[in-house]
Amino acid sequence: MPTDEHVNHAYTTNKDALLKRLGRIEGQVRGVARMVDDEKYCIDILTQISAINAALHKVSLGLLEDHVSHCIVDAAAQSADTGDNAIVAEKVDEMTAAIGRLLR
Amino acid sequence: MPTDEHVNHAYTTNKDALLKRLGRIEGQVRGVARMVDDEKYCIDILTQISAINAALHKVSLGLLEDHVSHCIVDAAAQSADTGDNAIVAEKVDEMTAAIGRLLR
Amino acid sequence: MPTDEHVNHAYTTNKDALLKRLGRIEGQVRGVARMVDDEKYCIDILTQISAINAALHKVSLGLLEDHVSHCIVDAAAQSADTGDNAIVAEKVDEMTAAIGRLLR
Amino acid sequence: MPTDEHVNHAYTTNKDALLKRLGRIEGQVRGVARMVDDEKYCIDILTQISAINAALHKVSLGLLEDHVSHCIVDAAAQSADTGDNAIVAEKVDEMTAAIGRLLR
Repeated sequence: MPTDEHVNHAYTTNKDALLKRLGRIEGQVRGVARMVDDEKYCIDILTQISAINAALHKVSLGLLEDHVSHCIVDAAAQSADTGDNAIVAEKVDEMTAAIGRLLR
Repeated sequence: MPTDEHVNHAYTTNKDALLKRLGRIEGQVRGVARMVDDEKYCIDILTQISAINAALHKVSLGLLEDHVSHCIVDAAAQSADTGDNAIVAEKVDEMTAAIGRLLR
Repeated sequence: MPTDEHVNHAYTTNKDALLKRLGRIEGQVRGVARMVDDEKYCIDILTQISAINAALHKVSLGLLEDHVSHCIVDAAAQSADTGDNAIVAEKVDEMTAAIGRLLR
Repeated sequence: MPTDEHVNHAYTTNKDALLKRLGRIEGQVRGVARMVDDEKYCIDILTQISAINAALHKVSLGLLEDHVSHCIVDAAAQSADTGDNAIVAEKVDEMTAAIGRLLR
């Protein structure tokens, strides 16, 4: 788990929005558990799960956007100064792997 | 939202397993919120979200399996008696629509 | 790979529609290859790939719908006669596994 | 459809690999059409479609990787020179939207 000191973790811009969204998702998951406990109709529960999937996708996109506009853009600016592309390449690989896991 | 009295909502077989899984997912969502609050590295957060996506898919599959093996199979047995296929067709449409929402 | 003689492979109802759709998807894939060869803008190519994903999802849903309304419903009707649920259970497992692979 | 003259469409590095992959996907789609035409078992066809989905995901990831490592990194280097972040922001938005369409 990399802790890169030199680049700012910039989803802090969207931090409040992300936390609000995640709080809502937590409530949706609790709602689904309640529906299962009350033995609601499966199809209705599946519809709620689709809504959670969509909400999680939005959180992922928010994080990716922040990652690219800060971590990768900062690394690119640095490497434009130093001529060393290794950090950028590493960040891009890491990001592609993360998107690959989301697409699965 | 249909409440069909005559067919049993049979995910009750898996109810405990589903509730346990959903409890775990709720904890994972809370964990992601904590990571955002602590400004952890975006990529590590995205990895956690991929794990939540996978866990939600398993819940969906469990519900679908129960839906087909009970609601649809019961409806099919009924319609084999009565010769009326309308209920089965309706249940299948409903299920296909639900899977379509999950695939999105 | 099961070849079940006793249940009809009933997507033959939608066969023409499925074949037409698949012909269109084949053309879309060829179009994407042409865009890559012409070095079109990545984002525009990704948009085309999203359209192919959506078209493939529709084919999958069509096949699933046929599978449930025929293979599974026929098996359910049989098992209502014979009292033997093993075939239904096997078909449902098989279907759940297939949906699981689509969700990945 | 943007045609940005000043940044290189750099998936040209992976061009041969992408074209080879797309050629294979085209063949897989044709194979699925043949299976439908021969009325093969639905579940087996769905398994093939899952393989096509996975192959398309790999193409998408390859294109995204190239997009970020070239278009976005070049734009970032430029904006480090000029102090103008607008182009980077636009590229990142465009990329996030493209990933959003893939996640659906």
